Amino acid sequence: MLSSLRLPALTSLFSPSFARRSQLSLRQPLYLRPPLAAGFSSQSAASSPPETEDRVDIKKSSQFQDRANTDRVITPRSQDFNAWYLDVIANAELADYGPVRGTMVIRPYGYAIWEAIQDYLNVKFKETGHSNMYFPQFIPYSFIEKEASHVEGFSPELALVTIGGGKELEEKLVVRPTSETIVNHMFTQWIHSYRDLPLMINQWANVTRWEMRTKPFVRTLEFLWQEGHTAHATPEEAEKEALQMIDVYTKFAYEQAAIPVIAGRKSKVETFAGADKTYTIEAMMGDRKALQAGTSHNLGQNFSRAFGTQFTDENGQRQHVWQTSWAISTRFVGGIIMTHGDDAGLMLPPKIAPIQVVIVPIWKKVDEKTGVLNAASSVAEILRTVGLKVKLDDTDQRTPGWKFNFWEMKGVPLRIEIGPRDVSSASVVISRRDVPGKQGKVFGISMEPSILEAYVKDRLDEIQSSLLEKAITFRDSNIVDVSSYKELKEVISLGKWARGPWSASDAEELRVKEETGATIRCFPFEQPQGTKTCLMTGNPAKEVAIFAKSY
Amino acid sequence: MLSSLRLPALTSLFSPSFARRSQLSLRQPLYLRPPLAAGFSSQSAASSPPETEDRVDIKKSSQFQDRANTDRVITPRSQDFNAWYLDVIANAELADYGPVRGTMVIRPYGYAIWEAIQDYLNVKFKETGHSNMYFPQFIPYSFIEKEASHVEGFSPELALVTIGGGKELEEKLVVRPTSETIVNHMFTQWIHSYRDLPLMINQWANVTRWEMRTKPFVRTLEFLWQEGHTAHATPEEAEKEALQMIDVYTKFAYEQAAIPVIAGRKSKVETFAGADKTYTIEAMMGDRKALQAGTSHNLGQNFSRAFGTQFTDENGQRQHVWQTSWAISTRFVGGIIMTHGDDAGLMLPPKIAPIQVVIVPIWKKVDEKTGVLNAASSVAEILRTVGLKVKLDDTDQRTPGWKFNFWEMKGVPLRIEIGPRDVSSASVVISRRDVPGKQGKVFGISMEPSILEAYVKDRLDEIQSSLLEKAITFRDSNIVDVSSYKELKEVISLGKWARGPWSASDAEELRVKEETGATIRCFPFEQPQGTKTCLMTGNPAKEVAIFAKSY
Repeated sequence: MLSSLRLPALTSLFSPSFARRSQLSLRQPLYLRPPLAAGFSSQSAASSPPETEDRVDIKKSSQFQDRANTDRVITPRSQDFNAWYLDVIANAELADYGPVRGTMVIRPYGYAIWEAIQDYLNVKFKETGHSNMYFPQFIPYSFIEKEASHVEGFSPELALVTIGGGKELEEKLVVRPTSETIVNHMFTQWIHSYRDLPLMINQWANVTRWEMRTKPFVRTLEFLWQEGHTAHATPEEAEKEALQMIDVYTKFAYEQAAIPVIAGRKSKVETFAGADKTYTIEAMMGDRKALQAGTSHNLGQNFSRAFGTQFTDENGQRQHVWQTSWAISTRFVGGIIMTHGDDAGLMLPPKIAPIQVVIVPIWKKVDEKTGVLNAASSVAEILRTVGLKVKLDDTDQRTPGWKFNFWEMKGVPLRIEIGPRDVSSASVVISRRDVPGKQGKVFGISMEPSILEAYVKDRLDEIQSSLLEKAITFRDSNIVDVSSYKELKEVISLGKWARGPWSASDAEELRVKEETGATIRCFPFEQPQGTKTCLMTGNPAKEVAIFAKSY
Repeated sequence: MLSSLRLPALTSLFSPSFARRSQLSLRQPLYLRPPLAAGFSSQSAASSPPETEDRVDIKKSSQFQDRANTDRVITPRSQDFNAWYLDVIANAELADYGPVRGTMVIRPYGYAIWEAIQDYLNVKFKETGHSNMYFPQFIPYSFIEKEASHVEGFSPELALVTIGGGKELEEKLVVRPTSETIVNHMFTQWIHSYRDLPLMINQWANVTRWEMRTKPFVRTLEFLWQEGHTAHATPEEAEKEALQMIDVYTKFAYEQAAIPVIAGRKSKVETFAGADKTYTIEAMMGDRKALQAGTSHNLGQNFSRAFGTQFTDENGQRQHVWQTSWAISTRFVGGIIMTHGDDAGLMLPPKIAPIQVVIVPIWKKVDEKTGVLNAASSVAEILRTVGLKVKLDDTDQRTPGWKFNFWEMKGVPLRIEIGPRDVSSASVVISRRDVPGKQGKVFGISMEPSILEAYVKDRLDEIQSSLLEKAITFRDSNIVDVSSYKELKEVISLGKWARGPWSASDAEELRVKEETGATIRCFPFEQPQGTKTCLMTGNPAKEVAIFAKSY
């Protein structure tokens, strides 16, 4: 499951500047704690903003000195994408480092994005016939060894429980890195006849993989995910299911997260340890690296043979079941950050934003305050009534200007400003997060509920579409068709994705990886027409593949 | 957190019959797998019923021979409560044993009950100002040692990860048994001033405790729960929060689960390891044992002192925060089973039932089938439209009689029967799960949507109330006021709960436990009027305590 998190890290995930900062806070051997969240004081972001003592020290010798008068320091995206990413996570309070190396604490604002992902997918999984359930996370070590390629893929990164209740255990227990083995152990007991099929389940769970190079959300020692597991009577049904679920993920990515993923099939080299076929959705991040954002595996009979998962068919014959598994994880939150964010911070698609509209009341004189606050509350109420997620930032500890920047940094799609003049004219000012400055600001929108609601909803829809369109444009301008290995190398060296016909060997695929740092991300489902000639060998090719460097 | 799962097992949880059966399936030292689910074939219960080869063998010499012609065998509750409990879990497919001793697989029907619990509480937690987030499950061993009584309470039952990524770890990692330590480690970094308070969070997570005596749902090596953690500026606020959350649990138990819990304060002896005060809700199971169903702890400054969690108050003084934690776990599912179930199996309160209404179409002749099925589908649609959870059991592999028994066993509150004559008269037959036989069956309810909807909703409300009333009557008839230790012993020996004034020492409390098997479940919030004399010492007492044997 989730080869998404299993790709070798070909390029250093830590930029020099990050490594430097990390050293500053290496407290003790076991605990790596970069100062990602150092000095951040607030849970309730509005009431108490980030402070930056530590950060300012760190950045003293950098070009950020001139920004030392602001509260927040976010490295520009164009200057150091990785530093920008970590800064956004810290400033927007999405996550923090846990005490154990490579672990992550998901903070409320980051967790709320994960909840939005869960809420959507959970409904889709049920609509497509799956039931939620829960398997234990401790798996006998012997289970992992039963499927040959599975153990090879996972054994280097297992966490093992060897002591329980004060005693050394007879058999080591694996903290699940994925659940195919224990699922099959149970399926073998539950499945008897064709009438028990298809068996279609899902679980929301934590999983553990002892990764050496970690990065918040993208690759952590423990992460949250859902893992679907199904068993079918025929290979055709299993294939249909695997494709159905990658389609669910694709729709989610486009329609909810505004991420124009490319869906396709993995090469044999990149297929999940234990699967016949792996389908994937590949997303282009702001630095043009690929992020494998979700996978769906056709497991064939690999696990059912290893675990003896059989059924009696309609003719009374015993057969092994055909299976699938599929997963999306908290990694997807990283994908959202790295797709839409900009120099000002996070930018969230309205459909998954924990706060869709922030209201900032503005007053100077004391006698203006009540009127403004009343109007702001009433606007908040109007919008909440129609199901929108609204935050009224009415604290008087911060200036409106500070609040504007703060909520922009948090990626809130729309801001409503209400001042004394707006109260007089019964109107508000509305600003879009995705259109900076005056261009994104509209004055004089009536407070009349039906007008205001419709206006806000339309703008949110527009922002949702606009983010997707922008991401599509970016993606398409960074995928280049190539017809030779020389062209491929050039394109990759420019940081772009290369698309070209491929029918060469696994060895040649590995050579590309060694020489360019790029891997085959997928053979996309959408293929160009016409005859194709393998860019490497000159032999006929059935499909084009997409090559890119990846997370 | 959750001392609910920490009470010593005073009485054997395994009846002789269960122990006998367990031995039959002790496959190898590490894997205890009683034949709880042996021979059960179905995931989709309706399409493929439980089989009982193994069980029939086991029960050959019992009084159940005369029931060998039915598919299911559930030990009567009155005969062996524990065997009944395990039979219900197996037959209703709520859970199964995992491969590692003491672990549990929560199957879809059981998980759906947990989801109903989650759905309700998650909303209440947010309404009361808490945000969800997620902490890593691996905790450095040194953290556990920081709070003296906490380490004493938890160290005997820890699971330890000692190997990660193929290497022996420098410091052992604890798989969280509860998260106060790691929460405080992070709170210390996030909390700086009084403006950061209160900090109120919750997480839905799995936790691990190396229990020696396990029982599905009630006590398992790994279980699911929510754990709330809050930090406040004053002891009064923390106390208010701890009380508020036990109140949320109490309302949930009464209004959703129809369990008339008794809310109160734990004795010092029974207080959570690391808390100043523990509040609890205690439920009386069908065998009159107490189940600690949820707890809320006022942690005082115990963890904030151990972890240095301080804030600067409005006067610029540094102070340690005041904290709470509170939890409800999958144990609650066990409480629902053991409160409402009867000899026919599970009985679910409508508000947490995964299926509230099952529709069984009845036909004999082929030409009746279409009309009956159409009517059944249309009734299902009518009820789904108003938000009810409806299952249409239209398989033709089983007789209506079989289906009646099956869905009764699964605890579905209402059954609708539709036959050819009902189709002619445009009416249905409705049976209540909680009123057996003809008494609970009403004929001729119109299919007219507005009439049918109203009738079904009213009946569900009635069932909900009726289950609660029945449980209250049972509870109240099994709590006896006592005024001496002699009386207490008599009442406990009859299997009842004893209520009496108590102001004696911890040593005397422990003596009661040793001599009677009963513990102080709580000092209930609802206290009788008048002066009180300690039942043990004859000294004045402020409060009555409730004594009972417990799970």
